[in-house]
Amino acid sequence: MVKLVSGDKVIYKFKPSMEAVETISPGDVIKVETNDCFYQQITSEEQVLAEIDYDRLNPATGPIYIEGAEPGDLLKLKIISIDVKSKGVVAVVPNEGALGDQVTKPVIRVIEIEDGQAVFHGIKMPIKPMIGVIGVAPADEDGEWPTDSPWKHGGNMDTTDIKAGSTLYFPVRQKGALLALGDCHAVMGDGEVCFTGLEIPAEVVLEVGLLKGKATKWPFVETDEHIMIIASGNNLEEAVYESASQAVKHIQDSLGIGWEDAYVFASLSVDLKISQVVDPKVTVRAAIPKYVISTQQLIESI
Amino acid sequence: MVKLVSGDKVIYKFKPSMEAVETISPGDVIKVETNDCFYQQITSEEQVLAEIDYDRLNPATGPIYIEGAEPGDLLKLKIISIDVKSKGVVAVVPNEGALGDQVTKPVIRVIEIEDGQAVFHGIKMPIKPMIGVIGVAPADEDGEWPTDSPWKHGGNMDTTDIKAGSTLYFPVRQKGALLALGDCHAVMGDGEVCFTGLEIPAEVVLEVGLLKGKATKWPFVETDEHIMIIASGNNLEEAVYESASQAVKHIQDSLGIGWEDAYVFASLSVDLKISQVVDPKVTVRAAIPKYVISTQQLIESI
Repeated sequence: MVKLVSGDKVIYKFKPSMEAVETISPGDVIKVETNDCFYQQITSEEQVLAEIDYDRLNPATGPIYIEGAEPGDLLKLKIISIDVKSKGVVAVVPNEGALGDQVTKPVIRVIEIEDGQAVFHGIKMPIKPMIGVIGVAPADEDGEWPTDSPWKHGGNMDTTDIKAGSTLYFPVRQKGALLALGDCHAVMGDGEVCFTGLEIPAEVVLEVGLLKGKATKWPFVETDEHIMIIASGNNLEEAVYESASQAVKHIQDSLGIGWEDAYVFASLSVDLKISQVVDPKVTVRAAIPKYVISTQQLIESI
Repeated sequence: MVKLVSGDKVIYKFKPSMEAVETISPGDVIKVETNDCFYQQITSEEQVLAEIDYDRLNPATGPIYIEGAEPGDLLKLKIISIDVKSKGVVAVVPNEGALGDQVTKPVIRVIEIEDGQAVFHGIKMPIKPMIGVIGVAPADEDGEWPTDSPWKHGGNMDTTDIKAGSTLYFPVRQKGALLALGDCHAVMGDGEVCFTGLEIPAEVVLEVGLLKGKATKWPFVETDEHIMIIASGNNLEEAVYESASQAVKHIQDSLGIGWEDAYVFASLSVDLKISQVVDPKVTVRAAIPKYVISTQQLIESI
């Protein structure tokens, strides 16, 4: 039986200590209702952005307690499906986004989805649903994180590869892991340059697994062809450094080779990919091809 | 008849004024011999990097004068093929690359290519030949650029999409354009984290075209599915800002819509992709899907 976690149970901060709204076990499949990043407060292009309740931005549904999860474990989330609604919103806000200084006025766009395509000015963009905010309770030493920021616990990673078919891994930092998620996008380009994607409520189905004693430094996501280390920083250089360092380390440990040779593998095969450049911290993922190391090799080498 | 430009005719700086070694006309197909970035000085893993001649790094074959090309035109280069040799080299150098501070010793690796795969520690990496350095004479106001740096004239853009099948466009800044190229890589990950790709001599076949009065601010490359604006800066934030700004501008001009709506299109569909993080300036490309604007729309709107 699939457990449902309803969208009215939300948090706005990932805290080391949180009260769970649901308890599940490894092997369970759960369906999570997620709100859009505005908690559905924006329904019309004529609305005034300044008048919405800013205390209700970026709700994440949860937290969900996973039985048996303890600090040092690795939480494994297979993303089975992300079903988005038929309409989403985009907001352009002066001084926000990669080109915030060029924005002359706030703009809201409500965009319909027809037959799997987001239609804007008559142009059809194939949707690629993804989860913007997903994370677990941070380590005590990392403290509290508002849901609009990414860090080692996950959070607002805004990574397009966090999509159906991918498997996402989080280092567990607190008992029960305390998973929460929200802020799905029907479609978004790498970078999320204007500050939002196509923000939309969704139903996310996840299969939950647990690997004991296998925690990594940062979350990572597995796609058909890559293992991607997702790291964040105060600027892209910091995020590049962190994600590349961990990619090289995992290649070194998985293959049992010298650090410099792992660095060579990374230079020839690892793609550094921008996730987002618009949140309080920015995010980069280092994509290791599975023909270099497999997920099993990576996990066994931890 | 295909004109051959031999690899002994090289430059080490892109200068506003250069003496051409060959003259061609729009419509011509040329074959260019390129040297690796070390001018083939490294042939063994036992060599001492400090002993090679650093005055011969990053040779670019050319310059090639294109008849009729004038400042304000757009040079169009269809990359027909990039044939690389059967062996390349990778260098790891202390304090170079994205993780230079972690390098404990200089390392050279000579890597063989067998049946289209680069083989290292028994792992086969499919090769994806690309051109590292390619550019034209800079504008007077931009001055001289060593071949190891990218800028508006092109240069060391180290962009994996500059590959066979792609079409590359350069704003012409000087009479005759004065094209030069070199520094091919058999394979490289986005970022080129260790400072080099798989450095290798090659023969590059290009079909040369010219569009009068259509110059852009930065070079761009067209692939099967994208138009990518290639911009460089002192850090990734600068390169992101430049490439994203130009992508939004081209979407706005091509579709005849407001700037904010073009910004929305960019946020939903444009991927900001890291090209390289290790050269004197770093490079990002903003990839606009062709379902948003076509190359023809972009060019007509200039």
